[in-house]
Amino acid sequence: MKPSHIEHIGIAVKDLDNAIPYYEKLLGSDCYAVEEVKDQKVKTAFFKVGQTKIELLESTDPEGPVGKFIEKKGEGLHHIAFAVSNLGERLKEAAGHGIRLIDQQPRKGAEGLDIAFLHPKSTFGVLTELCEDKSK
Amino acid sequence: MKPSHIEHIGIAVKDLDNAIPYYEKLLGSDCYAVEEVKDQKVKTAFFKVGQTKIELLESTDPEGPVGKFIEKKGEGLHHIAFAVSNLGERLKEAAGHGIRLIDQQPRKGAEGLDIAFLHPKSTFGVLTELCEDKSK
Repeated sequence: MKPSHIEHIGIAVKDLDNAIPYYEKLLGSDCYAVEEVKDQKVKTAFFKVGQTKIELLESTDPEGPVGKFIEKKGEGLHHIAFAVSNLGERLKEAAGHGIRLIDQQPRKGAEGLDIAFLHPKSTFGVLTELCEDKSK
Repeated sequence: MKPSHIEHIGIAVKDLDNAIPYYEKLLGSDCYAVEEVKDQKVKTAFFKVGQTKIELLESTDPEGPVGKFIEKKGEGLHHIAFAVSNLGERLKEAAGHGIRLIDQQPRKGAEGLDIAFLHPKSTFGVLTELCEDKSK
């Protein structure tokens, strides 16, 4: 599928207000955006390191996907997102390789990107996102 | 601490032979190296995507750190490694920020890099590695 780079790494945290100062020290740069993604029931905070963003995810609802993740596994690395072009085609290609899709079609994610998730049951436990920035 | 980029993402898998073909399809590129890191009790396989490597980790001993991780949490995202310069100085800086260190001093990791881990108890659950490539 040849992604160009890792677009972002998603990290589940209990409380953005606690985690943001740590990441500002670790990365030596300021959090540049905080955004709520209502359909994912998360509030996100973004940092940049090289080509890749760090996306902190705080659940806004214990029944949402990140709330459930933290309850089961604790805070930590949540997903990895690869930048691709022609996302719709990439999803067909993934399905053709026998990879199970969470999203059959691209949908809108944070920062206006088109996104789709692959199911961790067919990606060796790694929740994997493909995303396309059509503004570029 | 201003890392330049994400050097690699470590992913725990049960069996490299099963996982490598999936990552070759996902990343559209071949695994370029397989290496055993005896003191970490793992066999590793490397891929490249943009600035960052994907490092698959298969445990060679159920009592090793990756064996225990898989037993507790299952396969999945294991650690994130940031590329820094002057690693020894960066560790002092981290300790000065109150971050708990697993390695007080740099040691040798895969691919000949100098590495050190920060403790997930002070990094919001994310096992975090800092690494320096002194050959560059």
